[in-house]
Amino acid sequence: MADKIWRVYLSGEIHTDWRTEIARGIEAAGLPVVLSAPVTHHAASDDCGVAILGPEADKAWHDRKGALMNSIRTKTLIENADIVVVRFGEEYKQWNAAFDAGMAAALGKNLIVMHRPEHAHALKEVCAASSAVVERPEQVVEILAYVIRGELSGY
Amino acid sequence: MADKIWRVYLSGEIHTDWRTEIARGIEAAGLPVVLSAPVTHHAASDDCGVAILGPEADKAWHDRKGALMNSIRTKTLIENADIVVVRFGEEYKQWNAAFDAGMAAALGKNLIVMHRPEHAHALKEVCAASSAVVERPEQVVEILAYVIRGELSGY
Amino acid sequence: MADKIWRVYLSGEIHTDWRTEIARGIEAAGLPVVLSAPVTHHAASDDCGVAILGPEADKAWHDRKGALMNSIRTKTLIENADIVVVRFGEEYKQWNAAFDAGMAAALGKNLIVMHRPEHAHALKEVCAASSAVVERPEQVVEILAYVIRGELSGY
Amino acid sequence: MADKIWRVYLSGEIHTDWRTEIARGIEAAGLPVVLSAPVTHHAASDDCGVAILGPEADKAWHDRKGALMNSIRTKTLIENADIVVVRFGEEYKQWNAAFDAGMAAALGKNLIVMHRPEHAHALKEVCAASSAVVERPEQVVEILAYVIRGELSGY
Amino acid sequence: MADKIWRVYLSGEIHTDWRTEIARGIEAAGLPVVLSAPVTHHAASDDCGVAILGPEADKAWHDRKGALMNSIRTKTLIENADIVVVRFGEEYKQWNAAFDAGMAAALGKNLIVMHRPEHAHALKEVCAASSAVVERPEQVVEILAYVIRGELSGY
Amino acid sequence: MADKIWRVYLSGEIHTDWRTEIARGIEAAGLPVVLSAPVTHHAASDDCGVAILGPEADKAWHDRKGALMNSIRTKTLIENADIVVVRFGEEYKQWNAAFDAGMAAALGKNLIVMHRPEHAHALKEVCAASSAVVERPEQVVEILAYVIRGELSGY
Amino acid sequence: MADKIWRVYLSGEIHTDWRTEIARGIEAAGLPVVLSAPVTHHAASDDCGVAILGPEADKAWHDRKGALMNSIRTKTLIENADIVVVRFGEEYKQWNAAFDAGMAAALGKNLIVMHRPEHAHALKEVCAASSAVVERPEQVVEILAYVIRGELSGY
Amino acid sequence: MADKIWRVYLSGEIHTDWRTEIARGIEAAGLPVVLSAPVTHHAASDDCGVAILGPEADKAWHDRKGALMNSIRTKTLIENADIVVVRFGEEYKQWNAAFDAGMAAALGKNLIVMHRPEHAHALKEVCAASSAVVERPEQVVEILAYVIRGELSGY
Repeated sequence: MADKIWRVYLSGEIHTDWRTEIARGIEAAGLPVVLSAPVTHHAASDDCGVAILGPEADKAWHDRKGALMNSIRTKTLIENADIVVVRFGEEYKQWNAAFDAGMAAALGKNLIVMHRPEHAHALKEVCAASSAVVERPEQVVEILAYVIRGELSGY
Repeated sequence: MADKIWRVYLSGEIHTDWRTEIARGIEAAGLPVVLSAPVTHHAASDDCGVAILGPEADKAWHDRKGALMNSIRTKTLIENADIVVVRFGEEYKQWNAAFDAGMAAALGKNLIVMHRPEHAHALKEVCAASSAVVERPEQVVEILAYVIRGELSGY
Repeated sequence: MADKIWRVYLSGEIHTDWRTEIARGIEAAGLPVVLSAPVTHHAASDDCGVAILGPEADKAWHDRKGALMNSIRTKTLIENADIVVVRFGEEYKQWNAAFDAGMAAALGKNLIVMHRPEHAHALKEVCAASSAVVERPEQVVEILAYVIRGELSGY
Repeated sequence: MADKIWRVYLSGEIHTDWRTEIARGIEAAGLPVVLSAPVTHHAASDDCGVAILGPEADKAWHDRKGALMNSIRTKTLIENADIVVVRFGEEYKQWNAAFDAGMAAALGKNLIVMHRPEHAHALKEVCAASSAVVERPEQVVEILAYVIRGELSGY
Repeated sequence: MADKIWRVYLSGEIHTDWRTEIARGIEAAGLPVVLSAPVTHHAASDDCGVAILGPEADKAWHDRKGALMNSIRTKTLIENADIVVVRFGEEYKQWNAAFDAGMAAALGKNLIVMHRPEHAHALKEVCAASSAVVERPEQVVEILAYVIRGELSGY
Repeated sequence: MADKIWRVYLSGEIHTDWRTEIARGIEAAGLPVVLSAPVTHHAASDDCGVAILGPEADKAWHDRKGALMNSIRTKTLIENADIVVVRFGEEYKQWNAAFDAGMAAALGKNLIVMHRPEHAHALKEVCAASSAVVERPEQVVEILAYVIRGELSGY
Repeated sequence: MADKIWRVYLSGEIHTDWRTEIARGIEAAGLPVVLSAPVTHHAASDDCGVAILGPEADKAWHDRKGALMNSIRTKTLIENADIVVVRFGEEYKQWNAAFDAGMAAALGKNLIVMHRPEHAHALKEVCAASSAVVERPEQVVEILAYVIRGELSGY
Repeated sequence: MADKIWRVYLSGEIHTDWRTEIARGIEAAGLPVVLSAPVTHHAASDDCGVAILGPEADKAWHDRKGALMNSIRTKTLIENADIVVVRFGEEYKQWNAAFDAGMAAALGKNLIVMHRPEHAHALKEVCAASSAVVERPEQVVEILAYVIRGELSGY
């Protein structure tokens, strides 16, 4: 049985290196996975619109231009994904992460939610639409190893 | 030209009576609109799962049961809607509201976002997917009056 | 807020009057629900194909003719439904019930599974695709009353 | 005419080596087929959820976690498949197999059902949605050889 | 259980009154069915394009204009239908009837084929996509009475 | 055969009373048609965004706000339509009209194009996606009378 | 600009070598096209069902088994195609060809019809759904060369 | 993270070499992008229909044949694209460009509009459906570099 390439989009929090952890785990396990993610450079993500299309005096339009430009990447990668992982970190509103989760759910994507225990109640609706809820990046790698190869530690 | 019935789902914050304001405005204007909303009784919304299906010792599963049950209503009403309005209030994480917005956007629904000015930057991605961004409930009524009847104050 | 008519398809076991219980509960509660179901007359369901289209010496084709004819009803009513309830009873293989559940899930319908406790493990995959798992018909009525009207006993 | 790669998902019974028989037949015939299947290690399939996400005292939630995790694989592979083969064996309820068949049918996949003669009547609805009904794994290989290459023994 | 209105499109042969037979049968049985059909006035059907849009010297464009105009009706009514009945008569190529059947099948509509016994082999592919094959109009009424009301003579 | 209500969206040029002509014709013919159209008050259509959501110094954002608000109406009515008529008048770029036509075509709507003879070549791509090309409003009424009732003058 | 691989399904008449003509033309022109077709061995196509699944005394079921098996190939290849070419020859009813055309049209595929001049009127509905109507196989190659490479003899 | 191949369709104006500018920029930046475009040879584009399928005395049908043939290419490439760029130049009606934009928007493609400042108001509806509005080809390259690689000059 040939290996299908699994596409996994890593959405959410961009202030820690959780994506790198997952990338390393996938490489170590030799899994046929292609990861994708939003642009994680915070300032570039905020300013891409005005940087390319011209400045805006109004912050709202500055943000609108950037968000629309980022949506080209987000929409395409989510639509192309087999699995979407959304991580909620400690800080920030993270409404864009929950928004990505809603999009993924509506598109019938397999959703994995990663969050801190204290957010369980606030994320109950998002989790109810998911196929798995994890706390740590390595669990995402374990899920992928199981789902793709049937590999499960101890079995 | 006969009146089409417009279905509008009011998602989000359930701690103020913003939905009632919109309902009154729609009635006063005699607009052919059917409003829908999530269950707004906070305790019922949290406990519906265990109340009907049996108790759970684990809060996470208590919440899971309830969220799944609420999703029957939410998914159906969003799928049936022509317009989805999502209001972000002052408190709470409101990730379910952003999640609803993402679902609506992915389903190609017309999205109206209502938020306080201080949340503009945090909601930039959600707003970028919207057709209008408002601050007050009466603006929703004005948008509906315009979109449905072409009525615009002063014109 | 005007009442949307909720369409609920009751699939599965046709050897008890569980559908009638639900119909009574819905009527008593005055819920805006239209129920539908497969043809519950066992012999008619088995013989409809040959009865109308002509006899078949081979039982397999006798069954094929009937199943195809019944599928006209099943497919249409499931596609029209907002909610699909599938009840697994005590007897029979009931593979058509599980098949209906799979169709409903793939079509994005809200699925409620009704089963006896002893079938929980065998139905784990079907239940995982559901929004609620119940044991008794009255629970279906309670779910509908909550999901449609926000009514929850004790709240 | 270049060879399209045909993707075939083998669902159902995981207690015999019927999938291996098909794999060997495909290899011997040199068919451009990529086979996929659920995780066939029974214990791993049952425990994957708790093994990765943490234990559950309640068997129902133990099963729910595992079934949700397995659904990531099942949904993705069925959605990617050109043909879904579902085999019903001798034992077990096999409601998940019938569920997979319903999903495949609703998604417009080409469905092949493999079953023992004594199950014909119980599987009439599932078979009515199929493109072929077989008894033995080698017949699946013959169908693929015909459908893909137009090869038919004796012709 | 309230009556759903079933929409049935009667495609194909327009040289006999088979549609009227079905209409009478449906009325006599009091079935909640709305029938639709192509324009059955042969000359009007051929000339509608040039009659409204202006003459064409070239018969091919005369026909093209008419066929495009007729497609407005056909496409709409087939898309709206729950069931599509296609009758193949004695004469004419009837490629448009087979074309309608292909459209209906691709759109997931329930297809009923009506044909004379001598056409069975030529219609094998079309029939394979159908849910029932009949010879006489009254059989269509019987199927509808069964599928809609569970009524089956002798049961 | 009961009358289906046909929904027809009249897009394009808003500087003549062509829509009123069609409305009168439909009423005179007693056709079961519900017409819809964009907001035809030019100033209201341009200013709706800023009038309700607040002023914008930048004309581009003034226009963006209004266009997004108008899109709520346009998208909904086109999606609900069975037939979309797009009229190209004498003046203006009318790119929004061609845009509507493209949307309608992609959504599989039946498209009727109304244009002046001198625009035939420039509209060749739009017309190629249409089911009929007319010059005058009364022709639209004639098409509807034929398509809906099979009525054709002289036949 | 890298070459996209264009997939072209050649449906219809299987009694001449028209497909081979197209294949040679494509190879000579070096076009990035992958051709597909139904099984063209008439007897194998008729008997594939009974040959693999077992004999049927009734010719109708003999045909049904074969047609269902052939549909696995047809449906998959049409769904995968960018362009579907349907050729109507001199003989036979060819309802399966018109059926394929209807499927292709409903799936939004680009349809090219090949027919003899005398069939123009009988094929008017099928042609109305097409993007091109040709008489000879070499014209299909010319269309592909133009559509894929912009190559047009004399330009 | 492996590079996904991004497909970008460049629609619109065919009288300048703006596509070549973008192609050079993409090559220089080494972006994993496959560009596609309509046939840009004006005469070939106009005459392809009659050149291959035979002459037409009537210019409207000459144009119809050509537009239908060109639509095979346009529809396929737009459906395959991740991003559609539509450029409005100085001359011509360019209704086909706006039509392409409408198609792309309805298909959920990411739309980038390129236009001269003086067309902003006339293109407000088209721009409202876009993710970015640019004036110069190099900006398209910058957007792609950002969206695909997260590369932004100065960040």
